[in-house]
Amino acid sequence: MAKGNGQISAQTRAPRRIVLLGATGSIGRSTVDLLERDPEGFSVSAVAGGRDVEALARVARAVKAEFAAIRDENAYDALKEALSGTNTQVAAGREAVIEAALRDADLVVSAIVGAAGVEPTYAALTAGRDVALANKECLVCAGVPFMRAAMEAGVRLLPMDSEHNAIFQALGGEDPARIERMIVTASGGPFRTWSKERISQASVEEALNHPNWAMGPKITVDSAGMMNKGLELIEAHHLFSVPAEKLEVVVHPQSIVHGLVAFADGSVTAGMAAPDMRTPIAHCLGYPDRLTTPTPRLDLAKIATLTFEAPDFDRFPALQMALDALRSGGGLPTVLNAANEIAVEAFLDRRIPFDGISRHVAEACEAALRDGTANAPESVEDALAVDHIVRERSRAALAGRAPSGMLTLQ
Amino acid sequence: MAKGNGQISAQTRAPRRIVLLGATGSIGRSTVDLLERDPEGFSVSAVAGGRDVEALARVARAVKAEFAAIRDENAYDALKEALSGTNTQVAAGREAVIEAALRDADLVVSAIVGAAGVEPTYAALTAGRDVALANKECLVCAGVPFMRAAMEAGVRLLPMDSEHNAIFQALGGEDPARIERMIVTASGGPFRTWSKERISQASVEEALNHPNWAMGPKITVDSAGMMNKGLELIEAHHLFSVPAEKLEVVVHPQSIVHGLVAFADGSVTAGMAAPDMRTPIAHCLGYPDRLTTPTPRLDLAKIATLTFEAPDFDRFPALQMALDALRSGGGLPTVLNAANEIAVEAFLDRRIPFDGISRHVAEACEAALRDGTANAPESVEDALAVDHIVRERSRAALAGRAPSGMLTLQ
Repeated sequence: MAKGNGQISAQTRAPRRIVLLGATGSIGRSTVDLLERDPEGFSVSAVAGGRDVEALARVARAVKAEFAAIRDENAYDALKEALSGTNTQVAAGREAVIEAALRDADLVVSAIVGAAGVEPTYAALTAGRDVALANKECLVCAGVPFMRAAMEAGVRLLPMDSEHNAIFQALGGEDPARIERMIVTASGGPFRTWSKERISQASVEEALNHPNWAMGPKITVDSAGMMNKGLELIEAHHLFSVPAEKLEVVVHPQSIVHGLVAFADGSVTAGMAAPDMRTPIAHCLGYPDRLTTPTPRLDLAKIATLTFEAPDFDRFPALQMALDALRSGGGLPTVLNAANEIAVEAFLDRRIPFDGISRHVAEACEAALRDGTANAPESVEDALAVDHIVRERSRAALAGRAPSGMLTLQ
Repeated sequence: MAKGNGQISAQTRAPRRIVLLGATGSIGRSTVDLLERDPEGFSVSAVAGGRDVEALARVARAVKAEFAAIRDENAYDALKEALSGTNTQVAAGREAVIEAALRDADLVVSAIVGAAGVEPTYAALTAGRDVALANKECLVCAGVPFMRAAMEAGVRLLPMDSEHNAIFQALGGEDPARIERMIVTASGGPFRTWSKERISQASVEEALNHPNWAMGPKITVDSAGMMNKGLELIEAHHLFSVPAEKLEVVVHPQSIVHGLVAFADGSVTAGMAAPDMRTPIAHCLGYPDRLTTPTPRLDLAKIATLTFEAPDFDRFPALQMALDALRSGGGLPTVLNAANEIAVEAFLDRRIPFDGISRHVAEACEAALRDGTANAPESVEDALAVDHIVRERSRAALAGRAPSGMLTLQ
């Protein structure tokens, strides 16, 4: 009998209590899809959303949520009305979302997009809740204090991103200190084979045309420029306590192998799956058990060919910038992330060209290094404050850009 | 912090005591290569070999073995002479190999080729020793009683075969009961793209021309006809308690991905490595820690392309026969394995054509089903007795074949 570091398989169990933050976004909807299929397996203590009353009410009804919080404080009446006739309690505003995060739960799914997700996730974590993390900002913007809090609270952080989830599964409980290299794959996005010149002039439509994944616009634009992969390296660094010099990216256009870990004896383990977010979500929802999902099964003979290539740091400078920010330590990843988010907004508004995103981020990082904004944040609150300052600055810097302001840039 | 089913990493430890059975074969030599590189990490209680006095003496000196056993009982004086001036005790004969197996050890490496490996490995196991298993026959010939003994003795069985080791690492301690499919890869061997007709007439030299792995002649011929992969499925079934219907083979000519496990949530984990046996050996020697080896590191961007295809059961009937034997249960795998070994010998002696191997195995299985030889063996001794009977029969059946007896077959 091949005995490993065995886990106990629960044959039967009480329904798992779930809090779902960011219930109306892409990850939230996929999570709801899985929860709906297994009403015996899960009970939902709370759901939270941002602005979309209709969508949140639909989710709350679908999963019979005990509590529904909407961040938009003006939306209370509408949500109350939309959930009339149910047993779901309703609240609105920033505090309401935190209340949702603190509801009794075995697992809090943190799928709020952007910096708005940090505060409720941090609240859940410090209250001792295990967290399935899909929000990027918790780690990119506030990695050091966030991980310190997780360690102090003794909670489990399950990565929901396909790459980090794959690496978590590939690690299989092995001590990350034994890792020689940790490799995150990148699809290469829609501009993988494009020239630097052509990428610089890419339109919004071209940037949103991702070959493999259906995601929100912000992350899709990040993928096109490979900033997304850079942010994922920063996340991996914090999640698995792996130093920057052990982190690698390999471009893998088929998006079948999502992450790998290599050990000093030459062994490599990989996490793979057909590109469907419900697989890593299901892994987190079921962990340490496994749910049965309707996701496509991997058929390697049918896929036939997997290809890999080295990333091109020249055509995709955002990847290098993110790695540099990570290596420099301190608060530079916080700055990079905030400036990037505002620059992507400006690109989506057609106020700056595609290569204006990385140029703006580089300028923001340089400015922050000069004036001390890039010092290491001491706490999650500090990190959020830096995030806020940089966003304001970036908004101001990019506000003057005309809607088709390609020629006015710099 | 991503907490899994964590293992404790020993920062320092006493030298690990190793017994190496089959020290002069291919696996044995690779094991010695690793042990020699880490004299602080390992001490060798005993080494055992078959007939090659010179090679065994060289190994015993290289690893400063406390005890050296040679199976050839007439080789005592020669071994004693070859090890004069060392502190190594010397013994010869079948009992001496068992004595070696029972020497004090943290891990017994079982790398004796063929049925001769079963008895000493079983002795080590029942004496409570953890075993790193490279010998195929323990599981193929005596799987059920062997695994029962391992379970009763409460010992750890570490698979040293590249495929099973990859699967063990891919599982990462997860309960094999949660597996939806277990996939063993096959290089496809030298005849992967050949027609059925051409394979039937393959020469010994052609069968021994394996594209990826340097192995002994028996296993190389088994690989050419994919019987080797069939035997590995039988091993995987026993090692991981996975039913036959969950086992799959996928042809992967590059031999980079060695094995995969697929779960009900759509997740797949894979074990990969450059094709060098020292990697899985090092994994076993170091487990649960990791050794640092001089093996080539996997560079996916350099490899660039991995391909996969479904196996062809028509051109490679041995694979289907092994699966059928496994599905039928009972002692048929024991019969199949023994008949195959004798038929491969006959092929290597140029007494039967390449496709005569699988034809002979099919006949031997049919005969055994008719006369009860294929009943499930109750014990390891029973299995070895069946193995012996089938070998004798196969030798008799194939003895009359002329050295170039293609035309006289059947």
